[in-house]
Amino acid sequence: MLPFQVQILGCGSSTPTLRHNPSAQIVRAHNRLFLFDCGEGTQRELRRHSIAMSHLQHIFITHLHGDHWFGLPGLLSTLALLGCRNTIYIHAFSELEKMLAPILHFHLQEDGMRVEFVAISPKGGEVVYEDKEFTITTLALHHRVPCVAYVCREKMALPHIRRDMIDFLKIPHYAIKDIKEGAGWQTADGIFYPHERLVTPANRPRTYAYMTDTQPCPEHAEALRGIDLLYHEATFCNDKTARAEETGHTTTSQAASFAKQIQCKRLMIGHFSARYTDDTQFLKEAIEIFPQSVLANEGVTINV
Amino acid sequence: MLPFQVQILGCGSSTPTLRHNPSAQIVRAHNRLFLFDCGEGTQRELRRHSIAMSHLQHIFITHLHGDHWFGLPGLLSTLALLGCRNTIYIHAFSELEKMLAPILHFHLQEDGMRVEFVAISPKGGEVVYEDKEFTITTLALHHRVPCVAYVCREKMALPHIRRDMIDFLKIPHYAIKDIKEGAGWQTADGIFYPHERLVTPANRPRTYAYMTDTQPCPEHAEALRGIDLLYHEATFCNDKTARAEETGHTTTSQAASFAKQIQCKRLMIGHFSARYTDDTQFLKEAIEIFPQSVLANEGVTINV
Repeated sequence: MLPFQVQILGCGSSTPTLRHNPSAQIVRAHNRLFLFDCGEGTQRELRRHSIAMSHLQHIFITHLHGDHWFGLPGLLSTLALLGCRNTIYIHAFSELEKMLAPILHFHLQEDGMRVEFVAISPKGGEVVYEDKEFTITTLALHHRVPCVAYVCREKMALPHIRRDMIDFLKIPHYAIKDIKEGAGWQTADGIFYPHERLVTPANRPRTYAYMTDTQPCPEHAEALRGIDLLYHEATFCNDKTARAEETGHTTTSQAASFAKQIQCKRLMIGHFSARYTDDTQFLKEAIEIFPQSVLANEGVTINV
Repeated sequence: MLPFQVQILGCGSSTPTLRHNPSAQIVRAHNRLFLFDCGEGTQRELRRHSIAMSHLQHIFITHLHGDHWFGLPGLLSTLALLGCRNTIYIHAFSELEKMLAPILHFHLQEDGMRVEFVAISPKGGEVVYEDKEFTITTLALHHRVPCVAYVCREKMALPHIRRDMIDFLKIPHYAIKDIKEGAGWQTADGIFYPHERLVTPANRPRTYAYMTDTQPCPEHAEALRGIDLLYHEATFCNDKTARAEETGHTTTSQAASFAKQIQCKRLMIGHFSARYTDDTQFLKEAIEIFPQSVLANEGVTINV
């Protein structure tokens, strides 16, 4: 199975601590490398985990609080300095371009790297990225400022060719593509083998959703039902439910309840408030409600 | 003696490595806290070294390459978030305000903290800060873009009152100020004690110069002769003299030769290129020429 993984580069909240960096994570989707959010220090984390920055082309920003994008000027400058000749696409609300443009104009003008801003809508429900194997769509979240979740879906792949049948029937190479796409095969002596005998089913497509920063969003339960991995913020433990509501965030129990409601395979919680000095409490509260919960932590990689 | 110290928060160069952060340093000048440069991740380093961010009021930026200021948005946002009510003065070339203003407008508008930009001149030779105990002046450097050095000078303090003489002569409290400022004292029976008998000399004022990023600047030798501490960039070892010149930087031997020329008490070298994986070579080359050389390193504090 081709890799589809999430690697955490930062899972702290607005004030960085010595334990957690501000938000950033890498999604490896087959041979693609997507960056979701880019808090201050992200370029250093990419380096720490030996992630090939030069493969980056698409960066998705959830919202414009600084802990989700203040690492962009540094990362983009470094990419330019390293001689990156890609176009880097930054998917974000249009205000980000206004804030970054003067900096990029000053710092990247001599270099060959291009940065393109792709404006997303705070209303969500958009396909913001699509290629032949993946789509990335948005969902509107409830935060103090406009904010979206990103849902990264593998497309249904073509079925796997049965090598044994191909060899046995001596099916020529040129016919394989049609068979993968649904055709059967007639042998020289007129026996017809239907498509289903020549293939095994494709892998079930996998889905990952990245939901931060937000209050609980039960309205997205249907859209996310049964997904493989949900990253949901849990800024506060249950002792701070009122504070969570006040600041537009979620508690561990709320995140776990949502995971239970949508019956995802696994929940990863993150965006931990700086007020906690030990993350164990987050996990304890989450697994009470949804046992398939894991804690985000810098460097952790999880398969979707 | 009141503290006058430099603490390194970052002494790497343009691409941050896992060994060094981009440029930033704290100068503790009596009870003041100055920040010189503010590379990405500076707020985290302030936290790591338990430096009271709330005491910060003046930040001095040498030039506008990102490795010298990309930590400002994060630091300023965090100060605002922590409820800082100071005015923060940012001393820098005027272009910095144009780049930062849209970000600060977006991020600080709800908060009480004020940020004031104080435009400095690339020509140098300005007093950019003055209070009753310190001055900070600029010197123009030679880099690929306009860049200045900051020279932080303690002013000549008033002499120390001799407590024994004051007690012996029963000099009243109200007369002390005049004596510190140069007056003598006449006793009730007409004996005159000149000023010099009533005081011991003030401490010699100390001077610190922060010179990065630059090619060698022999024209500043006179202005800096005999200073206590010189921080001079040494981006490259002697193997890269041509590269140093090409990129507007200095080698270790050039930095040490300048320290020798100005006869400073101590040289600290920093701004190490990411191409070196061990700093020992920098120190070896520097002490060959100027034995009172030390290596900058994150966390290191040195008295001026």
